[in-house]
Amino acid sequence: MSKTISINAGSSSLKWQLYLMPEEKVLAKGLIERIGKDDAISTVKFNGQEASETLAIKDHTAAVKILLDDLIHLDIIKSYDEITGVGHRVVAGGTYFNESVLVDSEEVIKKVEELALLAPLHNKANAAGIRAFKKILPDITSVVVFDTAFHTTMPEVAYRYPLPNKYFTENQVRKYGAHGTSHYYVAHEAAKILEKPIEELKLITVHMGNGVSLTAVDGGKSVDTSMGFTPLGGVMMGTRTGDLDPAVIPYLMDNTEDFKTPGDIRRIFNNESGLLGISELSNDMREIEAATAAGNKDAALAYNMFIDRIIKHIGAYAAVMNGVDAIVFTAGIGENDAHIRSEIMKHFDWLGADIVAEKNEKRPVYGVISSNAAKVKVLVIPTDEELVIARDVERLKTK
Amino acid sequence: MSKTISINAGSSSLKWQLYLMPEEKVLAKGLIERIGKDDAISTVKFNGQEASETLAIKDHTAAVKILLDDLIHLDIIKSYDEITGVGHRVVAGGTYFNESVLVDSEEVIKKVEELALLAPLHNKANAAGIRAFKKILPDITSVVVFDTAFHTTMPEVAYRYPLPNKYFTENQVRKYGAHGTSHYYVAHEAAKILEKPIEELKLITVHMGNGVSLTAVDGGKSVDTSMGFTPLGGVMMGTRTGDLDPAVIPYLMDNTEDFKTPGDIRRIFNNESGLLGISELSNDMREIEAATAAGNKDAALAYNMFIDRIIKHIGAYAAVMNGVDAIVFTAGIGENDAHIRSEIMKHFDWLGADIVAEKNEKRPVYGVISSNAAKVKVLVIPTDEELVIARDVERLKTK
Repeated sequence: MSKTISINAGSSSLKWQLYLMPEEKVLAKGLIERIGKDDAISTVKFNGQEASETLAIKDHTAAVKILLDDLIHLDIIKSYDEITGVGHRVVAGGTYFNESVLVDSEEVIKKVEELALLAPLHNKANAAGIRAFKKILPDITSVVVFDTAFHTTMPEVAYRYPLPNKYFTENQVRKYGAHGTSHYYVAHEAAKILEKPIEELKLITVHMGNGVSLTAVDGGKSVDTSMGFTPLGGVMMGTRTGDLDPAVIPYLMDNTEDFKTPGDIRRIFNNESGLLGISELSNDMREIEAATAAGNKDAALAYNMFIDRIIKHIGAYAAVMNGVDAIVFTAGIGENDAHIRSEIMKHFDWLGADIVAEKNEKRPVYGVISSNAAKVKVLVIPTDEELVIARDVERLKTK
Repeated sequence: MSKTISINAGSSSLKWQLYLMPEEKVLAKGLIERIGKDDAISTVKFNGQEASETLAIKDHTAAVKILLDDLIHLDIIKSYDEITGVGHRVVAGGTYFNESVLVDSEEVIKKVEELALLAPLHNKANAAGIRAFKKILPDITSVVVFDTAFHTTMPEVAYRYPLPNKYFTENQVRKYGAHGTSHYYVAHEAAKILEKPIEELKLITVHMGNGVSLTAVDGGKSVDTSMGFTPLGGVMMGTRTGDLDPAVIPYLMDNTEDFKTPGDIRRIFNNESGLLGISELSNDMREIEAATAAGNKDAALAYNMFIDRIIKHIGAYAAVMNGVDAIVFTAGIGENDAHIRSEIMKHFDWLGADIVAEKNEKRPVYGVISSNAAKVKVLVIPTDEELVIARDVERLKTK
């Protein structure tokens, strides 16, 4: 019996979840925000209670110390010794990491830092989280779990871009995908619910949250995914464009004053586009839907464009796999938005897919929401990336 | 009975076809190349013969003069008077032209020139062709036919990009599509062959030539198409990338020496990518297939990536229309490459589509190549953009 922490470190935040393993019981979870500030906030949820404090936290190491002291203070653990493992979510694993690995050398952390070239904001923060735990709990099992690892099974035909070869060989420009842990988790859960070996299933997993990505999971393996070289690729998102005609960029550089540097492109395409750019209102799907219902035309356009890009990817992945057995919705929007699930599935009568309204609208919804007769099943499965991380720590633990 | 010329003017070329209308009989066709040079070449094909001459041609007006003199010289017409109409292909019609129009004012030509903002290389050349004919044959019916017009029926959800609104309202950045005349033509031909009103058909037209685009034609209307703001968008082509994660561009700007100006992006993404970029061998599908057959791995990768992007768009458009009745192949590769048609259709068993090998491999192939039992029909229809242009001249003629 051991206690394991799943960690998702951002540049100024640390999201964590404490598990009792192998029972997979969540003992507590929390979030530390505004790391580096004098008014950082640490929130802990446990046993239906919530505790919060505001204090100065200078860096990730200090944040980890606060977290552990909170756990003792709140009587969730008696001493640091009870924590036997930590798992860290890392965004970019590049081609180097195709599975979760033990952080058993400085080499591993260095490699995560090097891969910051592919995910500048994320990997550095992820590495800071790893180093903070190494400093305070040097002897526990430490594991890194990569958002890209599940997608390393993609064939070259899917991950290569039709650019001159040298940008692949010299600059590593290719599709890496993201949300891998989530796609992996819900694909395996779907197989259990459908009572079929995952090896025999063609699944399309639709992760719709703040970021949105779809994956074609054939026989348990990711064979294509919508996010690309970066999480900007694929479908339209809250503030991101997704894929588009690249000629738009040089045109905007030539014909507006807004695109003077590569950073301008990244900022506008990543942070000011998507639902927000079209609606000029919000990047939050709930607000977009409320405004749509209230007759706001820009919000309605944003909503319908969002659906349009999702359905195109579902159709595309059915073609990639030469068929599909089930479509699986997950993450914030995917789990909670019955209306958008129903709007999406209206485009797939021809596949023999359907949605049963009373299953779809049940709260909470879990499992199959299509009819028994449906040729293509539709499921809703809450994602649980933290659990996958905790399981990987358990699987790889050294003592 | 009238003689009508279809014109496709490039920056240094003039491609033409002379029709007897309304019989739709091709009397002659030809190509003038290297306009502006001392060694320009004019080639005329008629009655199974071919005549060619090399001479100095200073501009498009001189080229039109040569063309007409060739027609007289070769006894195809007796005098200029026999030509009663001319139709000009224009690449970009923007949102201004949603159908073919008479060139009955300087205004129309000016508008074509203004739209050069959207297709810098093409529209200026197209306008030069229009002006050349106006100068030499000022009184004949002159019509402009737009590559984008067929796609002006696309709903906003399809033509808008998820960018901040102002780039649409102030800079006209949206999807316009291309190859409209070809998609229109083969969609209507397919309806005739299938003996169904086009209003009742859901078609996916696959134009695979030097440029490649797919269109979802629902009830005779383009409801989505793969080319975007420019003909760089959509699927991988001979030398073009198609759509991709836009984050690739700022990354390459920051991490290579090749992308110093917007022009560098346009050049590399338009001219050095696609089949050529991956194979490092050729942009010509015939050479790619020959090299693939000979065991060249890069050529095989290029070939399979090309197919991958096509099948994804077919799947996507089936989703857009909530089904598909027929898939129609056309243009250079689409009409002549039985192998690629068969490779593409291998991904659509699940749709109830098939290909009958002996129909597919017949030369020339025309019409349905799927079985009678196929739920989704597959057709090959040679495109004929020149004929559509000649028909539009006939339809709009003023005397």
